[in-house]
Amino acid sequence: MLVQPYQLSATDVAAKIRDGQLTVEEYAQSLLGRIKERDPIVKAWAYLNPDQVLEQARKLDAVPTEERGPLHGVAIAVKDVIYTKDMPTQFNSPIYKDDAPQVDAASIIILRKAGALILGKTTTTEFAATTQGPQTTNPHDSSRTPGGSSSGSGAVVADFQAPISLGTQTGGSTIRPASFNGIYGFKPTWNSISREGQKVFSLILDTIGIYARTVEDLNLLADVFALEDDEPPNQEYLIKHLKLGVSVTMVWPEASRSLNRAMAKAVQLLRENGAIVKDVNFPQYLQDLPKWHSVVFNTDGRTAFLPEYRVDKSQIADQLVGHVENRLKISRAEQIKAFDEIAAARPIVDEMLGKYDAVLVPSVPDEAPKGIEATGSAAFNLIWTALHTPVINIPGFAGENGMPIGLSLVAPRYHDRKLLAVSKAVGKLFEASGGWKSQIV
Amino acid sequence: MLVQPYQLSATDVAAKIRDGQLTVEEYAQSLLGRIKERDPIVKAWAYLNPDQVLEQARKLDAVPTEERGPLHGVAIAVKDVIYTKDMPTQFNSPIYKDDAPQVDAASIIILRKAGALILGKTTTTEFAATTQGPQTTNPHDSSRTPGGSSSGSGAVVADFQAPISLGTQTGGSTIRPASFNGIYGFKPTWNSISREGQKVFSLILDTIGIYARTVEDLNLLADVFALEDDEPPNQEYLIKHLKLGVSVTMVWPEASRSLNRAMAKAVQLLRENGAIVKDVNFPQYLQDLPKWHSVVFNTDGRTAFLPEYRVDKSQIADQLVGHVENRLKISRAEQIKAFDEIAAARPIVDEMLGKYDAVLVPSVPDEAPKGIEATGSAAFNLIWTALHTPVINIPGFAGENGMPIGLSLVAPRYHDRKLLAVSKAVGKLFEASGGWKSQIV
Repeated sequence: MLVQPYQLSATDVAAKIRDGQLTVEEYAQSLLGRIKERDPIVKAWAYLNPDQVLEQARKLDAVPTEERGPLHGVAIAVKDVIYTKDMPTQFNSPIYKDDAPQVDAASIIILRKAGALILGKTTTTEFAATTQGPQTTNPHDSSRTPGGSSSGSGAVVADFQAPISLGTQTGGSTIRPASFNGIYGFKPTWNSISREGQKVFSLILDTIGIYARTVEDLNLLADVFALEDDEPPNQEYLIKHLKLGVSVTMVWPEASRSLNRAMAKAVQLLRENGAIVKDVNFPQYLQDLPKWHSVVFNTDGRTAFLPEYRVDKSQIADQLVGHVENRLKISRAEQIKAFDEIAAARPIVDEMLGKYDAVLVPSVPDEAPKGIEATGSAAFNLIWTALHTPVINIPGFAGENGMPIGLSLVAPRYHDRKLLAVSKAVGKLFEASGGWKSQIV
Repeated sequence: MLVQPYQLSATDVAAKIRDGQLTVEEYAQSLLGRIKERDPIVKAWAYLNPDQVLEQARKLDAVPTEERGPLHGVAIAVKDVIYTKDMPTQFNSPIYKDDAPQVDAASIIILRKAGALILGKTTTTEFAATTQGPQTTNPHDSSRTPGGSSSGSGAVVADFQAPISLGTQTGGSTIRPASFNGIYGFKPTWNSISREGQKVFSLILDTIGIYARTVEDLNLLADVFALEDDEPPNQEYLIKHLKLGVSVTMVWPEASRSLNRAMAKAVQLLRENGAIVKDVNFPQYLQDLPKWHSVVFNTDGRTAFLPEYRVDKSQIADQLVGHVENRLKISRAEQIKAFDEIAAARPIVDEMLGKYDAVLVPSVPDEAPKGIEATGSAAFNLIWTALHTPVINIPGFAGENGMPIGLSLVAPRYHDRKLLAVSKAVGKLFEASGGWKSQIV
């Protein structure tokens, strides 16, 4: 079967454009055709202007070869909480309907300079801060949620409407949609990519996330964003040389039968292929990590949503009104305690993780639930967001209903490049033998 | 002598406008007259459009009484690193010359909703991240720096060109100009006011700062920004009932003779008036706090300035190029260690400070130095920025050249309202008996 341009990975399309086998305009046409066909079902775009995309593409085609960057012509979808100079940024909020800040976020400046084709803005839950889904459906089963809050960014990559996309994560907003959509999702170390020019929910939690269908593509973006470990990692790990940890974490009681099976199968596959896999257990005094995350999440919302509350509280989700009004009556003393306890946990958990090449943990309690009203549970993501560690969701397993379930690898802070290298080997195994394959073509 | 509207405090002008004794337009005309007279010397504005100010003022005059907010008609100057929908935001960077993001920062949304008259944008060092001064002069002596990076915001308040202003602080950018200009500067608890819509330098250090000529005005803004302690403080402290700490901190070797004298006199005044004043000493294991701040400052710059570096590194200060290129060769391990050590210090220092109603510390090593090329030393500010505590500079003392020297009061995190209340009593004493009075009228 002939491969269509829209089906290509970012790495492959960059190579084809570089080699003159494909123009950016041809590529854009192919993607726009795909989007036109699939958008009525998946509904993943908050803003997409085909004429503007083609105009951008033609401009990119006119750039002399020697001035082209590493992402030249590669299309990327952007979650609609990230400012884009030439497109509206609306946060799925009626307060910001048709709002168009004429400024690029830091991440967008870097992407444009690298030659990326900014396709459009993808759907989000309100301010990336609630679990009420937008209209977007899961491309593998339109009766199910694609997860959130990066709903559109996860769905478009799974659905071949874009090879890569940007999301964000404050709770589980990058990793959860990655698992539900059967793709790679990468939450790098906190603040290793500037989050300037985005809606702030929590300064200490908010992290940019990246979606792709291959680890190679995540690596391409890691280069563009200048992610660097202290030591450049071995790029070709073999499973049989890996020493991995596995942790079900203190959130394990939330696990479904599907997740139980996926975790068991993953460990079995890794061991069968020669990896050492050891249990990693959180000490008792860190059992409250999810609770501390929740305290920070709620109290940071008290600061973050004051502007919208003052402008018109009837137009923001009741949950956000609750944040501002401190409905949970969290004292400043409790707020500081949670903030400080998480901070104290970071070096401890880094050391726990640092004994292994990476540590396998759940991404989600279950496959994507039915319905699009709610975006599912972030229970397994919260602690890693709070701890600032890099996390990569690796697809490959199937739930009881045949929907994808991913598992995550985590590593100590600023071991992003090593985590990517390990994920490449593990991803190859899980994708080949985990039992789930995307039927989307 | 007849008081001119431009001379009024924010609290007083709000009352006069509320009572119908003054229109916002009359007030704006008075301020614009003052600015016209003084701007050729002080040069504190990066953007000011008199017609736009008057148009805003007339719109505010047309707002029905029942729809007016607590800051109705009160003028405020805004540091030019904070987005304002209707004015350019240029960061004192040639890369962003004439750039006008059409979006308001979170702080500006809140101020506008409260009825504030946004006067214009005030000068800053490049991205609020260097110590190379803009063209602004100290209004008390135009041969000296007003400090930085909030150079213009400090100068306009001292010079009666605005009653209040917004600054920011990542090192000492709010407190240092407050001391050099002889005004109150308030750095609230980190993240108690949303910093969304500003240039990011360091997520964990950046804090909005507020300038005013009275503590009453700082309180007015604290109300607008919904700053809340767990317990509302006594509003009328008497010096004789105060139990204060005093700490010269580990930075004391930097102190000038002027600072030595100011600290000694302050303690003497407080004791003469009946306060208990006890020495507070940092434990030996926290002596590296300034060094840890420096590591975080430099490594966060590596992330923050990557966009501008990629766009055109020849157009950003060499210091910022150094951040991005990690010229100091700070490893990720050292970066994380500094980040975590500061985090571990926060609850310890909160407890140290919490034994007192407030703790007196230096604001600056000396009065404002000669020349406007450099904005002076932030040595005494760094630790408090890192520790996230609220800090208020209180004016009242004179250096050897007759220039103002302020001293700071600090308190544990989220004791902002108590710190304001204590500062009111202490400020009254220092202003009356410290030996320095502004000659600007």
